[in-house]
Amino acid sequence: MQQQNIHIEPKVTLVGAGPGDIDLITLKGIKAIREADVVLYDALVNEELLQYAKPSCTKIYVGKRAERLSTSQDYINKLMVDYALTHGHVVRLKGGDPFVFGRGGEELDYIRQFNIPTAVVPGISSSIGLTGLQQIPLTYRGISESFWVITGSTSDGRLSDDLYKAVETNATIVVLMGYSKLQQIVGLYQSHGRGNLPIALIQNGSLPNERVALGTVNTILEEASRNGVGVPAIIVLGEVVAKHQSFEALRKEIQYLEA
Amino acid sequence: MQQQNIHIEPKVTLVGAGPGDIDLITLKGIKAIREADVVLYDALVNEELLQYAKPSCTKIYVGKRAERLSTSQDYINKLMVDYALTHGHVVRLKGGDPFVFGRGGEELDYIRQFNIPTAVVPGISSSIGLTGLQQIPLTYRGISESFWVITGSTSDGRLSDDLYKAVETNATIVVLMGYSKLQQIVGLYQSHGRGNLPIALIQNGSLPNERVALGTVNTILEEASRNGVGVPAIIVLGEVVAKHQSFEALRKEIQYLEA
Repeated sequence: MQQQNIHIEPKVTLVGAGPGDIDLITLKGIKAIREADVVLYDALVNEELLQYAKPSCTKIYVGKRAERLSTSQDYINKLMVDYALTHGHVVRLKGGDPFVFGRGGEELDYIRQFNIPTAVVPGISSSIGLTGLQQIPLTYRGISESFWVITGSTSDGRLSDDLYKAVETNATIVVLMGYSKLQQIVGLYQSHGRGNLPIALIQNGSLPNERVALGTVNTILEEASRNGVGVPAIIVLGEVVAKHQSFEALRKEIQYLEA
Repeated sequence: MQQQNIHIEPKVTLVGAGPGDIDLITLKGIKAIREADVVLYDALVNEELLQYAKPSCTKIYVGKRAERLSTSQDYINKLMVDYALTHGHVVRLKGGDPFVFGRGGEELDYIRQFNIPTAVVPGISSSIGLTGLQQIPLTYRGISESFWVITGSTSDGRLSDDLYKAVETNATIVVLMGYSKLQQIVGLYQSHGRGNLPIALIQNGSLPNERVALGTVNTILEEASRNGVGVPAIIVLGEVVAKHQSFEALRKEIQYLEA
């Protein structure tokens, strides 16, 4: 039966698609996609997830262009509301988790101005998921009592103030969207005498083209180039990185080179 | 066909079960349970997830007693290895994510001593998932550029040093397993002049018996008692908490009472 514009019940659900592997979405996320009348999906979302949508579902790619972020966000906001009012249940499918630097909060604020009901289905954030798949424990008794996830890409392009505080703590630090600032971050840690701190870079985590570089702050730029790691990659800083199964061999190599 | 002890391939997979709602496990987690010969599950895991296990799967509850934590962890470690060697694929099913204060790292260290292959399937941590379901954005442009997840339950019972640093940042702070220290945390924030900071408590998040208390640092103890919130609850501190849909009404009430 063709849907008629009579009993439209507008609703927008923000759904976290996880870090890339299509099996890293939650069952609740899959159920939301199944029910959706419209799916608006991001560049970082694995398109194979759209297989769960019903045949009548309208699927729209809204991947943002880096050079005109704000225009695009306004456009996405309007699309969500327009489709909710004309089609019903809109699923806004976002990479990772909707609230971990996903601008999900801003989207909810906009949608609520129109009295449209909203819901959120959390997703596996790359900060937790990609470190987990690499078997790097974010926390570990006696080593790290916390983890701190910081954006590398602030709205005005500077390094986040939080990173200047993070470098003085024992927290495990995860920087998302910060690969282009890696050199600056390395310099910051070196200037605080933390050049020997273990660090990991994970690019395209959970996908077949995943690339990982491990090292210390002092060696990571060389390791990144040796392993061909590039954007988009997450940065993990902390003693827990040494728990990675390949780290011990690497440490011996570094000690040999420094001896 | 009955499984014979001839071609046992030992393996241990740590799987994150999510915060409670059975639909908040990933598809990858479900697939791991389906393949498991043995499932060892925690107190915080929703037992309905065991429905995915095959009929021949051995299911063992290993919920820890608070009064003898370390003994139990040793016992769980031994169980994992014994069952892997005698039964094959052991799934260690843990609440939330295995590496967010789940002692997953310690378990991997132990298992690897026996050259048993390990894998990790990340889960939705309550820190991200329960705030998400409450539509509290952990990060928000112009308000919070990071979130910091800290244990409230350090190995020696003190308040984590990280909390003394956290109170001086603009990061959104999530304290897990810290409800019994709420009064101490409130005092810490008040002593730093942050009594008006929004704070949320979420107990049994994602489950039918979920309870939430919202307020400011100054009012939260009263709100917790008014809403009957108790252990186990997560604590969320930060300006982003004011984005919760019920917060504005509450703020007006507080202003009225203080006027």
